[in-house]
Amino acid sequence: MAKIAVSRSHPRYLSLFYRDMLANGVKKGLTSLQGLTAHGRGEAFDYLIGEKTCQFALSAIKTASAMLILAKYPVLSINGNTSVLIPKEYIQLAKLLDAKLEINLFHKSSVREQKILNYFKHLGAKEVFLADTVQITTIKSNRRKISSKGQAKADVILIPLEDGDRTQALISLGKKVITIDLNPLSRTAQKATITIIDNIVRAIPILVETIRIFQHYPRKQLLEMVQKYDNSTVISQALAHIDSRLNLLISK
Amino acid sequence: MAKIAVSRSHPRYLSLFYRDMLANGVKKGLTSLQGLTAHGRGEAFDYLIGEKTCQFALSAIKTASAMLILAKYPVLSINGNTSVLIPKEYIQLAKLLDAKLEINLFHKSSVREQKILNYFKHLGAKEVFLADTVQITTIKSNRRKISSKGQAKADVILIPLEDGDRTQALISLGKKVITIDLNPLSRTAQKATITIIDNIVRAIPILVETIRIFQHYPRKQLLEMVQKYDNSTVISQALAHIDSRLNLLISK
Repeated sequence: MAKIAVSRSHPRYLSLFYRDMLANGVKKGLTSLQGLTAHGRGEAFDYLIGEKTCQFALSAIKTASAMLILAKYPVLSINGNTSVLIPKEYIQLAKLLDAKLEINLFHKSSVREQKILNYFKHLGAKEVFLADTVQITTIKSNRRKISSKGQAKADVILIPLEDGDRTQALISLGKKVITIDLNPLSRTAQKATITIIDNIVRAIPILVETIRIFQHYPRKQLLEMVQKYDNSTVISQALAHIDSRLNLLISK
Repeated sequence: MAKIAVSRSHPRYLSLFYRDMLANGVKKGLTSLQGLTAHGRGEAFDYLIGEKTCQFALSAIKTASAMLILAKYPVLSINGNTSVLIPKEYIQLAKLLDAKLEINLFHKSSVREQKILNYFKHLGAKEVFLADTVQITTIKSNRRKISSKGQAKADVILIPLEDGDRTQALISLGKKVITIDLNPLSRTAQKATITIIDNIVRAIPILVETIRIFQHYPRKQLLEMVQKYDNSTVISQALAHIDSRLNLLISK
């Protein structure tokens, strides 16, 4: 990645740091311009959430960890923003779970697909799947094209920073979907099996650490964790948290 | 403008449509990369508002219409995102009011200024002012440079999608500021004379239509409308609306 221009002493250093990373991602052909807008939307929700990993996110991360360990064929989906923001941790996650990595882009671009693939290989990913002949016809966008060795075979799929179409389509196919989305009102957040309402750059490292610990837990305990989990409660808690933060900002 | 890639049948077509428009705006040199992130932030607040023009916005649009008709020297400010999102309606508004158009950018760029100017001329704008020798020294950014024939002479200025610095500086100079901002907590929203808390692509066409109707109203009636208006009530109503929407969603 190219150099980041913003000074470490800036009060909003981290936010500007990731913004610069994505702008560099555009220059390197990994991120789409639309990805920058999507990130901006996330930034606003992160601001409302308070830019920290809350209890509702930790609860979702724990259950996601259990579900990913229990999965028979877990697949981790990669898009432009994911590839720029947390590629190393994503590869770490795939190795830890023996999960498949698959590139799936909203905006069709074979060039960008190839660049993301090369970037992941360069960072140490052994295998990264691209879309082949399989299509999910209920998805309107380029995301309908999936890999026969990846999402098509998966029982659990991690799709962070997502649009709602694919989540709904995958759920309809009987698959379990884990998402990471800062917007609790998005279609993805509302439809997913597990919604981690947190910034991907905070959530993925915690997910990695939690999986490291949970891998030693008995299978029964992990199953119970998944069975007890209620995603709608987690979403309500996130909304209530934003509401109380807004009320705090209003009364200031 | 270049082609828009997203399918009309996509449930979030409109949101993706405007995202594509701005991405094309960057390719054409009209919008800055930072403008894409700023738009994303707006998208987040539009989600919270419910992506429709609410009563508090209509009330602000009505009063803004009256104020713009009554103005002696109204000026409509153009930035990168405005120039891409609603250029035709903006030119229509200027003709209807016999108002001046002035380009004012946060990020200094003579090239971009010139491109926006050419684009507006191409779309039928007769005259578009650029910054000349006048400066508002209390503004830190490039926005301090204004036109001696535009903002410097204006009594009422429309500055949509704005940062807070200029709003405050113009108000201090005794001018009236109308803004369009999806974030009711922003400095601009809090400081403006009239704050239209709505998406610019929804608000400007309604503003145009309202002005067409109000132009036939007696001056006294328009004056009363402006005198009765309380911007802090409108902001409180917007915040209360977001609050009730969140509470409704929590209880679902």
